[in-house]
Amino acid sequence: MSRLRVAPDRAPRLVAAFRDRAHLVDRAEGFLGLEVWQNDRDAGELIMVSHWTDRDSFKTYMKSDAHRVSHGRIDLDLKSEIKLEALEHLHTFTVVAR
Amino acid sequence: MSRLRVAPDRAPRLVAAFRDRAHLVDRAEGFLGLEVWQNDRDAGELIMVSHWTDRDSFKTYMKSDAHRVSHGRIDLDLKSEIKLEALEHLHTFTVVAR
Repeated sequence: MSRLRVAPDRAPRLVAAFRDRAHLVDRAEGFLGLEVWQNDRDAGELIMVSHWTDRDSFKTYMKSDAHRVSHGRIDLDLKSEIKLEALEHLHTFTVVAR
Repeated sequence: MSRLRVAPDRAPRLVAAFRDRAHLVDRAEGFLGLEVWQNDRDAGELIMVSHWTDRDSFKTYMKSDAHRVSHGRIDLDLKSEIKLEALEHLHTFTVVAR
């Protein structure tokens, strides 16, 4: 889970970038799915959640060319506007119940 | 999304309570699914995520007998140990991309 913050008026552009994503991760070993959530009361807060079968698959993807390429597609000026929340950049969780 | 906090050594009991849940919500109109996440670096932090087709279905469930009954099943002493994080008790998000 990554928490991203942008100015609320820039959020539509960030959402559009996610909708237009390259889908390179979809073919990664162990990848189950990805969702982007927008806070209903704070449009500038977006949470990206990806699900993986196991931690190693996730770590392997994070070091992969596919990850580098997909991040390289983000416009530089949009990228500079995204403030990753301190300590909340990336949190990993285990799904313990459903 | 609700963020719950307990002492790390009490987390297994809270996880067990979720695994043993009554599943009353599963029959609620608009309910899509529920996950409980445990922070990999902080066992005392648990996040409950439920997915709904729309906000109104969620609000209707939150006011329902089923919701009251399912919360009533939690042991009182466990309940008193759960600290809902300030301002993080309940956040709602719209899934804006996948």
